[in-house]
Amino acid sequence: MSNLSVDHLLGIKGLSREDIELIFTTADNFKDVINRPIKKVPSLRDITIANLFFENSTRTKLSFELAEKRLSADVVNFSASGSSLKKGETLIDTVNNILAMKVDMVVMRHPNPGAAVFLSRNVNSRIVNAGDGAHEHPTQALLDTYSIREKYGDVEGKKVVIVGDIVHSRVALSNIFALQKLGATVKVCGPQTLIPKYIEDLGVEVELDLRKALEWCDIANMLRIQLERQDIKYFPSIREYTMTYGVDAELLNSLSKEVTIMHPGPINRGVEITSDVADSDHAIILNQVENGVAIRMAVLYLLAEKIAR
Amino acid sequence: MSNLSVDHLLGIKGLSREDIELIFTTADNFKDVINRPIKKVPSLRDITIANLFFENSTRTKLSFELAEKRLSADVVNFSASGSSLKKGETLIDTVNNILAMKVDMVVMRHPNPGAAVFLSRNVNSRIVNAGDGAHEHPTQALLDTYSIREKYGDVEGKKVVIVGDIVHSRVALSNIFALQKLGATVKVCGPQTLIPKYIEDLGVEVELDLRKALEWCDIANMLRIQLERQDIKYFPSIREYTMTYGVDAELLNSLSKEVTIMHPGPINRGVEITSDVADSDHAIILNQVENGVAIRMAVLYLLAEKIAR
Amino acid sequence: MSNLSVDHLLGIKGLSREDIELIFTTADNFKDVINRPIKKVPSLRDITIANLFFENSTRTKLSFELAEKRLSADVVNFSASGSSLKKGETLIDTVNNILAMKVDMVVMRHPNPGAAVFLSRNVNSRIVNAGDGAHEHPTQALLDTYSIREKYGDVEGKKVVIVGDIVHSRVALSNIFALQKLGATVKVCGPQTLIPKYIEDLGVEVELDLRKALEWCDIANMLRIQLERQDIKYFPSIREYTMTYGVDAELLNSLSKEVTIMHPGPINRGVEITSDVADSDHAIILNQVENGVAIRMAVLYLLAEKIAR
Repeated sequence: MSNLSVDHLLGIKGLSREDIELIFTTADNFKDVINRPIKKVPSLRDITIANLFFENSTRTKLSFELAEKRLSADVVNFSASGSSLKKGETLIDTVNNILAMKVDMVVMRHPNPGAAVFLSRNVNSRIVNAGDGAHEHPTQALLDTYSIREKYGDVEGKKVVIVGDIVHSRVALSNIFALQKLGATVKVCGPQTLIPKYIEDLGVEVELDLRKALEWCDIANMLRIQLERQDIKYFPSIREYTMTYGVDAELLNSLSKEVTIMHPGPINRGVEITSDVADSDHAIILNQVENGVAIRMAVLYLLAEKIAR
Repeated sequence: MSNLSVDHLLGIKGLSREDIELIFTTADNFKDVINRPIKKVPSLRDITIANLFFENSTRTKLSFELAEKRLSADVVNFSASGSSLKKGETLIDTVNNILAMKVDMVVMRHPNPGAAVFLSRNVNSRIVNAGDGAHEHPTQALLDTYSIREKYGDVEGKKVVIVGDIVHSRVALSNIFALQKLGATVKVCGPQTLIPKYIEDLGVEVELDLRKALEWCDIANMLRIQLERQDIKYFPSIREYTMTYGVDAELLNSLSKEVTIMHPGPINRGVEITSDVADSDHAIILNQVENGVAIRMAVLYLLAEKIAR
Repeated sequence: MSNLSVDHLLGIKGLSREDIELIFTTADNFKDVINRPIKKVPSLRDITIANLFFENSTRTKLSFELAEKRLSADVVNFSASGSSLKKGETLIDTVNNILAMKVDMVVMRHPNPGAAVFLSRNVNSRIVNAGDGAHEHPTQALLDTYSIREKYGDVEGKKVVIVGDIVHSRVALSNIFALQKLGATVKVCGPQTLIPKYIEDLGVEVELDLRKALEWCDIANMLRIQLERQDIKYFPSIREYTMTYGVDAELLNSLSKEVTIMHPGPINRGVEITSDVADSDHAIILNQVENGVAIRMAVLYLLAEKIAR
C-alpha cells in the first residue's frame, strides 16, 4: 500500500495528484464502512486525537468527530471559549501541553492564516488543518472534489465555477488547488471587489457575469455569504448581491445545459441559492456532507500511518 | 416482543396506554442493568445519536447522554452556543446536515413549541423530544409516572395534584396526558394567573387552595418556579407565592394522610418546597432522577427497533 | 496490595506519606501504560465519572479526561456555563442529581475553598478535588513532587523554593504539604504582600531575595502570575514583578549550581520565566504535564478500589 507524500495535511497546495487520489480510494473504502449497519472500524484504536477549535464551527467539528469515533480513536475536544488562551498562553504552549499528554494527532481550526503550518514546524505531532483564516481548508476541497468524482466518475476535464466572495474564502483557494491538480478547469465569478488580484496568476479566469459562467461550467460551487462578518462590504448590499449572483430554479432551468450545484454550507437560503435549488436534483449538497466523514476518515487514517508505532 | 405504535417520541399525547406500559416494562429491565456493577449493554452499539440542545439543560442532557452511553450508542453533542444557528441556518438544514453524516437518532430540546413535530415531518430520522417550549416534555412525564408506579405498584386510580405555574410548563402538560392515559385523576393547583383557560377541557379540575388540594391527593408534583424568567409575573411576588403555594414539613405533617412529594428539579429550596420536605421520606425526587436514565434507555431502545437495519 | 487511607482526594493535608508513595508507585505502572502503543487499560470500565468544572480550566480538565478514558471509565462532563447552577440550584442538589444517575466518582473544580470537603460529607461518592479556590489542588502537587522524584530519584532531602504569589495559590499550599511529607525542605520567595502571614507556622521559611533563594535550592517552582485577576495587586506592577522575581537564562547561568525549573502552567512567557528558560534543559515543565495523566490515573484507580462492587 502506498503512502502520502506529506506528514501533515496543511493545505491542498502541498499535495501531489497521487496523494489526492490515494485519499479518494481510501475514502471509497470508508464510505462503504459508514453505509454498513456497523459503522466502526478499529483502525485508530491506539491513537488519541485532539480537536482544537479556536473558531466556531458546527459541521466541520462534528464531521471530524464522527470520523474519529468511527475509526475508534480516542477523542478530546478543546475549544477556545473557556480555554487558557484567554490567559495569554501561546498557541505552541497550548499544543505542546496537549501533546505532552500523549496526544498523537491534532485537528485544528484557527483564525490566523498559516497557523497550521506554524504548528507543524514547532510540535511533534500529525497536524490536520481544519481551516486557517482565509488561507486553506483542505478537507473541504477534498470532499468537494470527491463529490464531483462521485457524480461524474472523474474530475479530469470538468469545468467548475466558484461563485461568490473569493477573496475571504479558504474554501475557494483550496478548491482551486485541488481542481487544478486533478485536471479540471476553474473560473471564479463574483463582484469585482470580492475577487483577489492574484487570482489570474493561479491560472483561474474571472467571469463577472453569472449567466455566462453558468453556461460555461459543468459544476457551480456557490460560496457562503458571511452575513455575520460586518467587515465585509457586499456589492452593494446583500439584496443586490442576490439579484446579481444568486441562483434560483428559473435561472437554472433557462440554461442550455445541466449544471450541478454545490455549496459548502451552511446555506443562507434565498441568498446564494433559493430553497428550490438547494432541495433539487441539481444540488449535491448533502452528498458533500456525507462524503465529508469518509474523506476525513481517509485523511486521519493515512496520516496515522506516519506515526511511528 | 411488541413494538411502539409511533416512530418518534414527540409527546405523550400521541402515545397509547400500551406504548407507555411497554416503555415501563422495558425500563424495568434497564433499571436492573444500571444497578449492576457493569452498567452497559451493547444494544445500540451500531447506532449514532445526536443530542441537539438549543436551550440550556443540565440534568436532561446528562440523563440522555448516560442512557445513550449505557446502551453503547455513539454520541455526538451539539449545543446552540457556538453553533451555525447563529449564522442564520435553518433548523432543517442543521439537522439534515447532521443526518447526512449518518446519524440515526436525534434527541432535541428547542425553545419553540412544535419544533420536534416539525422536525419529524421533514427529516429522515427517529426524533426524541427532550422539551419543546411550553408544549411537551414526554420523557419527564414518563419518568414521573414510572416513579409513581414504582412507589405504589400502579398508577391507575391515583390522585395527583400538579402545583405551580401550569401555563408555562411542558412538564405539567405531558404529566396530565400520561397520568390520564394510565387511569389517574389529575388536579392542578396554583395562582389563577398561572393556570391556562383550556385546562378544564382536558378533564382537569382546578383547586386554588393548596391545603384542600393536598388533602385530596396521593401525590403532589411541585413544579419549578422559573426565577430566571423575568417575563413571568408570579402572584404577586415569589415570597407570597411561597407563603400560598409552597410546601413545608409543618404543612405536610398537619395533613390527615400521607402525601408523596415529587419535583422535576432543579429545586428552588425554600420556594416550592423547603429542605426538610425535599430531603424527607415523603419525597421521591432522587428516585425520579434515577428512573430518568432507565426510562430514556427504554425510549431509545424501542425507537431504535424502528430503524431499518 | 495496600490501599489509600482516605476515601476521597480532598487535599494533600489529609494524606499520609505512605498514601503519596502508593500513588507514585501506581503512577509508575500507568506511566508505562501511556508510553505503550495501546494506551488503554480496562481497569475502570464499570465506573462512571462526572467531571464537574465550576471554573474554567484547560489542562487540568483535559488531563483528567484523558486519564479517565485511558482507564476505560465512562465519562460525563459538566461545566458551569450552561448549567442549572444559574437557576439557583445548590451544589449538593446538583451533585446528588448527578449521583442519582449512578455516577460513581466526581472530579470537581470549584471557586470556593472547602467545596470538595463539603461535598464529600454530603454525598455518597468518591470525590477528587481538582482545585477549590485558593485552598488545595492535590493532583497538581502530586504530579509536581512525582516529577521531582523522577528527575532526582527521591524527594527526601531536596531543597525547593516556590516563587511568586503564594497567598492566592492552591498550588503553593498543596506543594508545601506534599514536599514536607516526603522529607523535602521548602522555602517561599516573592513580594512580601503576596506571602501569607501563616506561612512560617507551616515550617516554611520566607526568602524575599530571588538570587539567594535560587542559590539555596535544588528546584524552583515558578507560580503563574494571574494576569486576568484584576483584584490582585502585583508589586508594584507586572513589569517590576518580572524584574525582581522573574527568571531568565542569564540569571540561571550566573548561579554557582544547577537549578531545576518547574511551572504549573500556563506560562506567561517573559513574566515568570523567559522562553529561553522555559524551553531549556533546566525546565521539566512538559514532564510535569505528561506525569499529570499518570498521577490522575493512579488517583482514580486507587479511589475506585474504595467503591463497593
